Amino acid sequence: MNTNSDWVKRAFLFKKQLAAKIPAEWKKLTPDIEASQNVIDAVALSGILSETELQILRLDAMGLIDAIALRKYTSFQATNAYAKAAAIAQNLTNCLVDWFHEEALERAAWLDKQLEQTGTVVGPLHGLPISLKDICGIAGHECTAGFLSFAGNKVPDADGTLVAILRDAGAVFIVKTAVPQAIMHLETDCFLGPCTNPYNRTLTPGGSSGGESALIAMKASAMGVGTDIGGSIRAPAAVTGIWGFKPTASRTPKYGNVSTMSGQEAIVGAYGPMGQSARDMNLFMKVVLAAEPWKIDPTQVAMPWRIEELTWRGGAATPTIGVMWDDGVVLPHLPISRALKYAVGKLRVAGFTVVEYKAYNAKEAWDIISQLYFTDGGERIKKYCADSGEPVMEMTEWIVKQNSRPRSSLEVFDLVSQRDEYRARYNKHFQAAGVDVVLCPAGYGPAQPLGTTKWWGYTSQWNLVDYPGGVFPTGLSVDPVMDSPVAREAFYSDLDRELWSEYDPKRLVDAPLSLQVIGARWEDEKVLAAMTQISEVVRA
Amino acid sequence: MNTNSDWVKRAFLFKKQLAAKIPAEWKKLTPDIEASQNVIDAVALSGILSETELQILRLDAMGLIDAIALRKYTSFQATNAYAKAAAIAQNLTNCLVDWFHEEALERAAWLDKQLEQTGTVVGPLHGLPISLKDICGIAGHECTAGFLSFAGNKVPDADGTLVAILRDAGAVFIVKTAVPQAIMHLETDCFLGPCTNPYNRTLTPGGSSGGESALIAMKASAMGVGTDIGGSIRAPAAVTGIWGFKPTASRTPKYGNVSTMSGQEAIVGAYGPMGQSARDMNLFMKVVLAAEPWKIDPTQVAMPWRIEELTWRGGAATPTIGVMWDDGVVLPHLPISRALKYAVGKLRVAGFTVVEYKAYNAKEAWDIISQLYFTDGGERIKKYCADSGEPVMEMTEWIVKQNSRPRSSLEVFDLVSQRDEYRARYNKHFQAAGVDVVLCPAGYGPAQPLGTTKWWGYTSQWNLVDYPGGVFPTGLSVDPVMDSPVAREAFYSDLDRELWSEYDPKRLVDAPLSLQVIGARWEDEKVLAAMTQISEVVRA
Repeated sequence: MNTNSDWVKRAFLFKKQLAAKIPAEWKKLTPDIEASQNVIDAVALSGILSETELQILRLDAMGLIDAIALRKYTSFQATNAYAKAAAIAQNLTNCLVDWFHEEALERAAWLDKQLEQTGTVVGPLHGLPISLKDICGIAGHECTAGFLSFAGNKVPDADGTLVAILRDAGAVFIVKTAVPQAIMHLETDCFLGPCTNPYNRTLTPGGSSGGESALIAMKASAMGVGTDIGGSIRAPAAVTGIWGFKPTASRTPKYGNVSTMSGQEAIVGAYGPMGQSARDMNLFMKVVLAAEPWKIDPTQVAMPWRIEELTWRGGAATPTIGVMWDDGVVLPHLPISRALKYAVGKLRVAGFTVVEYKAYNAKEAWDIISQLYFTDGGERIKKYCADSGEPVMEMTEWIVKQNSRPRSSLEVFDLVSQRDEYRARYNKHFQAAGVDVVLCPAGYGPAQPLGTTKWWGYTSQWNLVDYPGGVFPTGLSVDPVMDSPVAREAFYSDLDRELWSEYDPKRLVDAPLSLQVIGARWEDEKVLAAMTQISEVVRA
Repeated sequence: MNTNSDWVKRAFLFKKQLAAKIPAEWKKLTPDIEASQNVIDAVALSGILSETELQILRLDAMGLIDAIALRKYTSFQATNAYAKAAAIAQNLTNCLVDWFHEEALERAAWLDKQLEQTGTVVGPLHGLPISLKDICGIAGHECTAGFLSFAGNKVPDADGTLVAILRDAGAVFIVKTAVPQAIMHLETDCFLGPCTNPYNRTLTPGGSSGGESALIAMKASAMGVGTDIGGSIRAPAAVTGIWGFKPTASRTPKYGNVSTMSGQEAIVGAYGPMGQSARDMNLFMKVVLAAEPWKIDPTQVAMPWRIEELTWRGGAATPTIGVMWDDGVVLPHLPISRALKYAVGKLRVAGFTVVEYKAYNAKEAWDIISQLYFTDGGERIKKYCADSGEPVMEMTEWIVKQNSRPRSSLEVFDLVSQRDEYRARYNKHFQAAGVDVVLCPAGYGPAQPLGTTKWWGYTSQWNLVDYPGGVFPTGLSVDPVMDSPVAREAFYSDLDRELWSEYDPKRLVDAPLSLQVIGARWEDEKVLAAMTQISEVVRA
């Protein structure tokens, strides 16, 4: 155990070492940019990147892969461009936890040489820079899980299954991205300090994959890997206006990554992609599953990616969509409801079948999942904090306190039975609705002022039933006039009342508005295909 | 809590009530038959069944389904024939726990009428009598889990997912079959007294699905449903010379059944078929998965049955087989090794590629799984016994004592991590072997004298790694001359020495010899297809 000042010094040292890895010439920004609340265009405005480099950054992953394969750009060029952009993003949003662009450039040069010499790509991601959330196991780099005590102490010798697949497919890794303490806030704050939302730096980029979302929103990463056990891919993607996809938990491999709750399998997190387009989400799933990770990875079911085989209800050309306006616990705030109405209107005009979909016992879902997150009562977290002397943060304490205590194995059995019983009821509810997918909010509000995000229900609901879900940007953002507060008399809950009263659109300027598409467990292909169709219509 | 004599009286009463349900005229056997050690032909010899009924019993499930669909026999005839045979089997082996042939006949008559009136079958199992292991949830009938305290108290209102699917497919249910106390012996003894092996009634029919195996071996059931968390389908099927298949745990639905360890998901049991032929195993899987149980059942992955799609290594016409002669912990006894050598010889002559396959840390596998079975330290079991006053049986105590104690959630996390780490290593070991399937013993010996079966390793190994496995009868049986004991000097372990010294083929007369086919997790189709090919060659 260390004293208080020890941990502050060590955290400072870690940050200093990280900063020292990043070339100084990529950090020089004008005072104008440095003082801006909205820095979403800072990369383009910085003058640090060439026009060619900015062109590269405007591509999505598939676009960039094609351009590299066609030798329009080299992987080296792309890697350098993304490294510069990431340096700027780090400077402005504090989104990184590790940096290794020299290793990345070496790798990119090797890939370029392979393509030049053989005329063929190494794999389907040839040359693509990919950012990795802190806890992804990659040989030689930091995995902190947001704990100072992990920093420098959990560097893996080997890639985890997922990173090994991406690497074999030709990816290039430049950075690892920040997470909140214990990886369990819907924001991103830890011993490194808070990560901020590039659309409005007084707001959170969400969490726990908030380093990813800030980076990708700034177009400083072509594709990122996130994880989601209560919303940690979808919430940050939604509040930063990028794309995110949380698969059914066991459809992507988890082995060889770092987890603070390893061995906890009552609620399992999912690894999934975050990025610039719907088709990039599909690319990620296709490439990962084409590698058949289930042959070696014990966390993964053997289900190939079969998006070509899917059909919509009644053989229709478009999915039947159930719209879930709210969850019956916390009413979505005005901008979110507006975005959902806007989307439904456009979908109906475009000829989609949109029916009402009722939420089902969302409070019960939260009561179950919030008991299952920390059946050790948060003991591991306390230990990991005590190991460095860093304090348990308020948001960490909040989630642990929801419903956790140290439980016996027997008590966990009872909770797991409750979970399965709920899942069975939920499955019936979903099947009876007769829809292909559900369109719903990705959270009760847009990006929140730092340190204020509450109510995970709009995302954690789907973790409890293990349904896949994706989020997409509608193209809308908070409008302080259109979204000005209105009074309500009846509330679903005290929390509903509290959050409604806190709502102030003037504090949420420029926050993007996103929506969520959900489908039945295992129907990941359906969710992504539907999200592609829906987002095309909504964003048109 | 009840007194000692209470439970004995209540157990006696339960047995009496069960006996009273069975028509008296189906219980009258000659003293010759009643005194026989080997009663495998008792149904045919009893004089209770007509020649037509005996012809029905000679069919496997697919044969009977075809015959009913072609109106050669009615389901009523078949149900009556199987009810008679089951009465005889119960009389001689004590294999049942519930009986409801009148309900079954009514159902069969309804099915016959449907076929007559519509000209089409109700489903792919139209008219087929299926026996159910005690713990299968079926509306209105006993689920005891081998506990007197459950008897009469755990009768479900509704069918579980699996039984509902079988019923929808046209199955008829006549009986439920006996299990050992706590469903956790490799024999079948509980408050109802021991179930015996029809080949030699001094021996066990295995367990925990031993009521099924005794019944099916006597051809008194066309198909049965078993469960397997350590060998409970494969071990009883192997020692009674029938067919059994344990799928990958989450490929068949479990919801709505009775479990003594509900909510325990670190090691999950699998529901699977037991029966008269390899093709019947395939039929069961095909029918169950065609119903897409994953849409409602939370215990099931969405993997259709795709046996048609499979290919063997190198595009060969036959599977590459790894032969695992022993597990390095307990050397198989002489009859088993003889059967395995016999099979390998025949396979090589038939042109199959058979290579050596080494066991991998089987003792470590046992150390992990035996800790995971009862992370409550057996508390539930003790309570279920205390509820009726029945004593905890020796074999129950043995398995609980292996490695169990009440563990905290945190301790279970560590065990689960150990399990996954072992699984990852095992997967590498298997993939490196370059085989399609492994051919190996299904146990260290054939059927054992009642109350003496030890060492689950030959089956539980595959539960730990969650690999699918099936067993088939070689057609050989114990030969006291050929299999006469030989001395050994070196032993793998104390247990190896102990079991080797206990071996006495004169006590094992007529015990059938079976073998096991194993494949990688999720490759259930491969295992069944390979078992079909292998068994055809071996039994030719």
